[in-house]
Amino acid sequence: MRLKNKPWAHELVEAHPEKVLIRPEGKIDWQKRFTNPDLPLRIEVGSGKGQFIIRQAQAHPKINFVAIELQTSAAGVILRDELKLALPNLQILLGDGKMVDTYFARESVDLVYLNFSDPWPKTRHEKRRLTYRDFLRSYENILQIDGHIEFKTDNRGLFEYSLVSMNNYAMKFDYVNLDLHNSDDEVVAQNIQTEYEEKFSRRGHPIYALHAHFQKK
Amino acid sequence: MRLKNKPWAHELVEAHPEKVLIRPEGKIDWQKRFTNPDLPLRIEVGSGKGQFIIRQAQAHPKINFVAIELQTSAAGVILRDELKLALPNLQILLGDGKMVDTYFARESVDLVYLNFSDPWPKTRHEKRRLTYRDFLRSYENILQIDGHIEFKTDNRGLFEYSLVSMNNYAMKFDYVNLDLHNSDDEVVAQNIQTEYEEKFSRRGHPIYALHAHFQKK
Repeated sequence: MRLKNKPWAHELVEAHPEKVLIRPEGKIDWQKRFTNPDLPLRIEVGSGKGQFIIRQAQAHPKINFVAIELQTSAAGVILRDELKLALPNLQILLGDGKMVDTYFARESVDLVYLNFSDPWPKTRHEKRRLTYRDFLRSYENILQIDGHIEFKTDNRGLFEYSLVSMNNYAMKFDYVNLDLHNSDDEVVAQNIQTEYEEKFSRRGHPIYALHAHFQKK
Repeated sequence: MRLKNKPWAHELVEAHPEKVLIRPEGKIDWQKRFTNPDLPLRIEVGSGKGQFIIRQAQAHPKINFVAIELQTSAAGVILRDELKLALPNLQILLGDGKMVDTYFARESVDLVYLNFSDPWPKTRHEKRRLTYRDFLRSYENILQIDGHIEFKTDNRGLFEYSLVSMNNYAMKFDYVNLDLHNSDDEVVAQNIQTEYEEKFSRRGHPIYALHAHFQKK
């Protein structure tokens, strides 16, 4: 989801190199960037305004989180809220989700969250979808052996595409839910909503969820 | 879907051994049972009242079809309609879907249809669902190398289960549709509806569809 341009965002993210990395080159020493470097590491690719990842970081102080965003305006919104909350376990990375395996070491990440990413409905834009095989390969490279992807969307076309794409990539499905907000299970009980999810589920749109992992090679 | 008991059905199916096989033992020589034995063979596991398989047989005279049903009443309804139409390319098998690999030779079947089968929602009944792994193994045994399964249901729980079950069985997905009747593609254009599908899609229930194949071994 594209945000309106926020002129103040650029200056804010540049003023906080301790919190935001801007299109870094090469692997990051994430251990050095977190107060507690020995915690499991989870990332969200495409964090939007950041409600989900901020609430995750608040709910799980014993896990380190990285919010990855392509847009400076979005990174600025996340940072602004994060600074108020002074969260020691949340970092922001301004960069491209397809390149996560240049930012993170092999098998260093515990979980990759994909939430309500741009559906790119036109076939010629398939390669931009966050569940296209080049993205999956990038996630596979950084996930630990037992690491997972947790994917949510309200976009039917993107969910149909992703079921086929992740299956064809030989990922193993652990959990499928075709109407997350009309369900009663442990995943639902622990669900943290994005801004977008709150808005669209209130309108009665079904929210789709898929949890999957890569097979050991 | 369980039909009401039809007292006339038992006698009718027994009177037509040229059309109906009743719980046969061992492999069937299907070549001998069809007017044109050299056509591709497609089966439907759980045909209910048979609208789908009868319309398929009418639409595709160059394909042989077998309707498999566990219930005598259902087989009777299919047979009654089939006799009126005198379809040379439709046979009925009264028997258990889990045992298809005892009725059909290895790699003899082109396509397996699963339409609106009983969801068996209780976990303790998982083994009865037509997409449980023992059923999948049975379909795998009889399908040709490039053979497919085409599965439709309006039952959300069964579809969620089947996506995970078929994925975990290492089947490859070719097509997923989460609202078949609100779609516009080639599969939809060629869709033949079951009685049940007509009724429930009219009520606004989404119809889910999954096409998948087994990987070569």
